[in-house]
Amino acid sequence: MSKLPTVEDVALAAGVSRQTVSNVINSPAIVRESTRERVEQAIADLGYRPHMAARRLRTQRSSTIGIHLDPYAGGISGVVLDRFVHALTERAGERGMRIQLYAARTPTEEIAKMGELSDGGEIDAVVITGTFHGDPRTRWLAERGIPFVAFGRPWGDDDVEAPAHLWVDVDGAAGTRAATEHLLSLAGPRLAFLGWPSGSGTGDDRERGWVEAMAAADASGPRYVCEESVGQARALVGGILAAGPDIDGIVCVSDSLAIGAHLAATEAGRGDFPVVGFDNTPPAEALGISSVEQLPEQVAAGVLELLMGPSGSVIAPRRAEAGAAHVLVTPRLVVR
Amino acid sequence: MSKLPTVEDVALAAGVSRQTVSNVINSPAIVRESTRERVEQAIADLGYRPHMAARRLRTQRSSTIGIHLDPYAGGISGVVLDRFVHALTERAGERGMRIQLYAARTPTEEIAKMGELSDGGEIDAVVITGTFHGDPRTRWLAERGIPFVAFGRPWGDDDVEAPAHLWVDVDGAAGTRAATEHLLSLAGPRLAFLGWPSGSGTGDDRERGWVEAMAAADASGPRYVCEESVGQARALVGGILAAGPDIDGIVCVSDSLAIGAHLAATEAGRGDFPVVGFDNTPPAEALGISSVEQLPEQVAAGVLELLMGPSGSVIAPRRAEAGAAHVLVTPRLVVR
Repeated sequence: MSKLPTVEDVALAAGVSRQTVSNVINSPAIVRESTRERVEQAIADLGYRPHMAARRLRTQRSSTIGIHLDPYAGGISGVVLDRFVHALTERAGERGMRIQLYAARTPTEEIAKMGELSDGGEIDAVVITGTFHGDPRTRWLAERGIPFVAFGRPWGDDDVEAPAHLWVDVDGAAGTRAATEHLLSLAGPRLAFLGWPSGSGTGDDRERGWVEAMAAADASGPRYVCEESVGQARALVGGILAAGPDIDGIVCVSDSLAIGAHLAATEAGRGDFPVVGFDNTPPAEALGISSVEQLPEQVAAGVLELLMGPSGSVIAPRRAEAGAAHVLVTPRLVVR
Repeated sequence: MSKLPTVEDVALAAGVSRQTVSNVINSPAIVRESTRERVEQAIADLGYRPHMAARRLRTQRSSTIGIHLDPYAGGISGVVLDRFVHALTERAGERGMRIQLYAARTPTEEIAKMGELSDGGEIDAVVITGTFHGDPRTRWLAERGIPFVAFGRPWGDDDVEAPAHLWVDVDGAAGTRAATEHLLSLAGPRLAFLGWPSGSGTGDDRERGWVEAMAAADASGPRYVCEESVGQARALVGGILAAGPDIDGIVCVSDSLAIGAHLAATEAGRGDFPVVGFDNTPPAEALGISSVEQLPEQVAAGVLELLMGPSGSVIAPRRAEAGAAHVLVTPRLVVR
């Protein structure tokens, strides 16, 4: 590697002391303007850049946000998180922040990893994803005083008025409501809902949108339940269509279930049977299935706003107080 | 945050000087064994961890590898790269290395970003992806002497005997050969190839596998060309099947084209028409289409081996010399 210019090179070129160069970089207000301009010119001419490790020690800030990457588990649902990491990297870069990845297979491993990175001064904050009831990570982070934002609500608490921590999430009920309203106007009033077994915060939230939109339209339809599996949904919906109940379309809790439903309908010679999914994944796009788009780019923007303020360049998280401590992104229906 | 133990705390607990603690951490060989054991015990008892920024300054190493995340562009092909980043993060973590992401929209932006990170001592090496003919990044990295490995061949040069740089890639021809041999035994000798327009290194490499396997079996079939688009492939194959040429199956250059072909066949009432894709993406899995799996986990292992040796924990790239400077991963056909 070609030798990089040092602070000594800058001092020599500008005809000042090493300390003066350091002052220009760290406390420019105390340096006479003509001197400062000369030093800044030398910095520009030489292409000098302060070593980040030195800056980290001096400022006690790493300007780095840690984020966990789940092990790849197959299936299609990881796409939203991957898009979120992409968007977070882009937006964080615009604010001079770095994104550092870490791997962990369990919450316990993730806690150990976060502790190691935080103790070593390698990260100033973390973003956690996939929050769940009784999540040990959020309690640990709060106790350690490590700034963090969750992509995902603190399910089971009073998320909005007394949020346990800063969070950004997608308004699943609003998404399914939009999907249901679309199918009501397109297909008719007898819309089924194909959901996951009760008890998952995300699934229950999405189902609520269907319940509300159907009630508002004085419509009704059956509710079916299925695991998150294209094959199971295909078999279930195949049986439903063969039995011939009188339904006009199916609102699905996920793209996996919507794809299964669409494939079953196609096999039954009804390729145009109205189905809507959730997550707007590449397979839904490829099959021409309408779906609710989570807008991961807006989630990423919300995370940085909670951590750094609307336009800040250092970590200064908002206090987790009523109303001010969350961002709820309204998803968008993509009609195909 | 609870106050972390410092080197002074360790020195006090072990009854030694600060310098001795530093020696135990950085040059343990020069410390008497009984003293070293006492200091190590104090480090363990207190849970002391050296500040990474200080270690970075001292060692002039960041223990960090940079990798570019492309902006999310939709479609299904990004999945392989995302899986690669997942695997790289896991395996790098096992070797004590960090993965830092950066965003850039053009090769020029990527070069500027790599320069900034390298100048600031923030990364010890980079991994670049999506290499292409005349790629300016590889030349720039070589000139700057920044250790790097490419996921992707230096297309157009003598990649194996005189490689321009270290690289890991997937043997596309071997993948398509396996796919073709499978369809030959399953479906019959008249196999078409559905590929991209000539001129892309990846596409031409994959087509070669079909050519070779067909020649070895004394078989022949037509070659069709299409852009990387589910819709275009669907329309094209729909027309082909309607015209009724005598083909037993289609080997496709990508999952997008295989999905389009499969959908066209399903619409024509031939849902079991043999089709094989490439990349083993979630949509292919969801539709039950056989596909060639790139094994991104092996690519990640290959990248680290070229950068760090078989089991090293510091960047020590192999020299880019004949034969020794690449890892070619043989992909695996996933039959569905």
